Amino acid sequence: LITIDPSRLLSDLENLRKIGECGPGVIRQAFSPADIEGRRWIAARMQDAGLDPLWDEIGNLFGLSPGDEPSILIGSHSDTQPEGGWLDGAFGVACGLEVARAAREAGLPGVSVVSFADEEGTFAPLMGSRVWLGTLSLAEIEDLKDAQGRRLGDALANFPESRNPGKVPLDRFRAFIEPHIEQGPVLDRAKEVVGVVTTIAGMRHVEIVIHGDQNHAGATPMVGRRDALQGFLKYAAALDQIYRSIASPVAVWTFGQLNVHPNAVSIIPGRVRTMLQVRDVTTEGLDAMAGAACDLAEAHNREGDIKLTARVVASLEPAHMDRGLVEALTATAAVRAPNRWRQMPSGALHDAGNVSRKLPTAMVFAPSIRGVSHCFEEDTKVEDLVFVCSLVAETVSCLLA
Amino acid sequence: LITIDPSRLLSDLENLRKIGECGPGVIRQAFSPADIEGRRWIAARMQDAGLDPLWDEIGNLFGLSPGDEPSILIGSHSDTQPEGGWLDGAFGVACGLEVARAAREAGLPGVSVVSFADEEGTFAPLMGSRVWLGTLSLAEIEDLKDAQGRRLGDALANFPESRNPGKVPLDRFRAFIEPHIEQGPVLDRAKEVVGVVTTIAGMRHVEIVIHGDQNHAGATPMVGRRDALQGFLKYAAALDQIYRSIASPVAVWTFGQLNVHPNAVSIIPGRVRTMLQVRDVTTEGLDAMAGAACDLAEAHNREGDIKLTARVVASLEPAHMDRGLVEALTATAAVRAPNRWRQMPSGALHDAGNVSRKLPTAMVFAPSIRGVSHCFEEDTKVEDLVFVCSLVAETVSCLLA
Repeated sequence: LITIDPSRLLSDLENLRKIGECGPGVIRQAFSPADIEGRRWIAARMQDAGLDPLWDEIGNLFGLSPGDEPSILIGSHSDTQPEGGWLDGAFGVACGLEVARAAREAGLPGVSVVSFADEEGTFAPLMGSRVWLGTLSLAEIEDLKDAQGRRLGDALANFPESRNPGKVPLDRFRAFIEPHIEQGPVLDRAKEVVGVVTTIAGMRHVEIVIHGDQNHAGATPMVGRRDALQGFLKYAAALDQIYRSIASPVAVWTFGQLNVHPNAVSIIPGRVRTMLQVRDVTTEGLDAMAGAACDLAEAHNREGDIKLTARVVASLEPAHMDRGLVEALTATAAVRAPNRWRQMPSGALHDAGNVSRKLPTAMVFAPSIRGVSHCFEEDTKVEDLVFVCSLVAETVSCLLA
Repeated sequence: LITIDPSRLLSDLENLRKIGECGPGVIRQAFSPADIEGRRWIAARMQDAGLDPLWDEIGNLFGLSPGDEPSILIGSHSDTQPEGGWLDGAFGVACGLEVARAAREAGLPGVSVVSFADEEGTFAPLMGSRVWLGTLSLAEIEDLKDAQGRRLGDALANFPESRNPGKVPLDRFRAFIEPHIEQGPVLDRAKEVVGVVTTIAGMRHVEIVIHGDQNHAGATPMVGRRDALQGFLKYAAALDQIYRSIASPVAVWTFGQLNVHPNAVSIIPGRVRTMLQVRDVTTEGLDAMAGAACDLAEAHNREGDIKLTARVVASLEPAHMDRGLVEALTATAAVRAPNRWRQMPSGALHDAGNVSRKLPTAMVFAPSIRGVSHCFEEDTKVEDLVFVCSLVAETVSCLLA
């Protein structure tokens, strides 16, 4: 049986935290000096664990188990948002390192580790896993720029490890397990210690543009106004009503982005552009929600003076985790933490969603205190981190045995 | 009796239109070369009309009637918004020129003309009339910059006419009449040819900030979300209901400006800042509306998780036109255009609002086709322009007789 050493896990996490440290959080955006320093440190830990560190063309860092036998890949990413928490993906990478070390000590050296490049989208979200899996080619993204105007191609050219890149074939692995913090409040609210992910929600982005009449806010009477922002208010309220009756219990919907034109105090808004994001765990649910948003725009067009256009501009299908792995992890959780675990969807995207289309894949969540993430205040109780890592180790024991 | 010559009025308007012409509209922002060229052209027309052109320290251009007798001042402004119509304030200045000329021909030379500087707020709204009336001092605004970063003090230093400025005392005038286009749809919808303004609406600006919890739009369930934009939707809908029951028939309210933070597709809005503008013709009406906005924010604070702050950040009291002048203009309109005139408030601000606090003041509106203004498409039928000018001339005849 693989038995982890909690002190090694926590020491790795604390050491990694010091690289890019900022108050209680960290700043390690992809391909920044802190990100590169952090991942070189991880490469050294891989070596210490008897793994063979290998960087590929996009900067993914794999720590490969010895021999040619397909291994179990464990890991996540160690880059952060512009303001990030100390755990996030780093927790998954540290779990991988500790399980690999403990597996080797137990005479079961079949565990490999990964730190995927740029999961957070400094250049493109989930970039490293998409390039590795071949769904995105380096050629089509090398001109992408980050918020500081730095070109991806230049960032890679300045990164010695990617100059003679290795190639890591998919068949080096039997399965992928990504431990991560939940980034939501579900486990914390329920006082549970682990979530076994069943599906990573898919999404639709619906761009909605509302066209009114831009006009003088003083000289234009209320009667006969065509105020684009008021048109949005009416639309959003009606859509909320519809979603409350048709959406699945785990579906979410958000108007995260909204721009008013010309956005001046004395001018009636002539145009509002907003992006609606819907997420759900089934393609049918996503299509129903996106369809309802488009149909409602049409209905408002027929009824009123204000013109709306709504169109789906991005789609991502739900990613289902491997049933066997989910059951194995769940069975272990049920024994080790009775009534303090759950199966749950992931509302957030993860590299595991991409990998699951090619390899049997699973994810486990540790609770996020108050559900807070992508900020310096993100945190998880130390005993929960240790528990999730030991749960993965125990499940991997069974898979390797 | 003063009888205008329509061809001279229209020729002046067409000549002025050529200065800064852009398609059917014009671009003559305050202190731009086109604005200065236009106003020098107006100064020459004043001279032709037997008036004495005089520029003051802020660049207001007065054409003073001969002699020391208090005269009737007629005019408006000839600067435009970044994209302006050919009439707007230029119509009022051209009316003044034509009435002054016709008055002189009729042996009644008691009409002066004005083109106020920067009415449109290139540096500060209604700037020229405020400085002339002493409610704004040059010292406190000379560091203001326009959208191109040009400093007002520098613009004035490069304007020879303001280097040896004249002083125009208020007692040079008995009254002020400002002809203008309506900039709203009221007269056009009613097929009326003139509006006699009774009051220029005052206003309140209420800044409302809604504080929610910024969070991951995928990982945060609908239950327990504190979405600042959803908080705004609920607030705005409730406020609209309240205003529809308490607001006066001529009151208007607008959320013209709204900013969502961080305004990203995958992040639940953590903060929304919006500016509510209310306009009405009584101080009581304005206070009731602004008060209701603040009270509603308090009520939502007590009821819900989302925190709102609302505070009045700007106030302007209504400006009442002189009752005698309003009656004189109305009496003439009732004879010359039976059933095709109305008394009405002005929802838009005008220099006349400032002047009315010091001098008996009136305004007359010509209809705006489809109520469109502050854009190249602004227009008014030629016969309506001639009618409004002749109405002013006839009323001035009675006042001077």
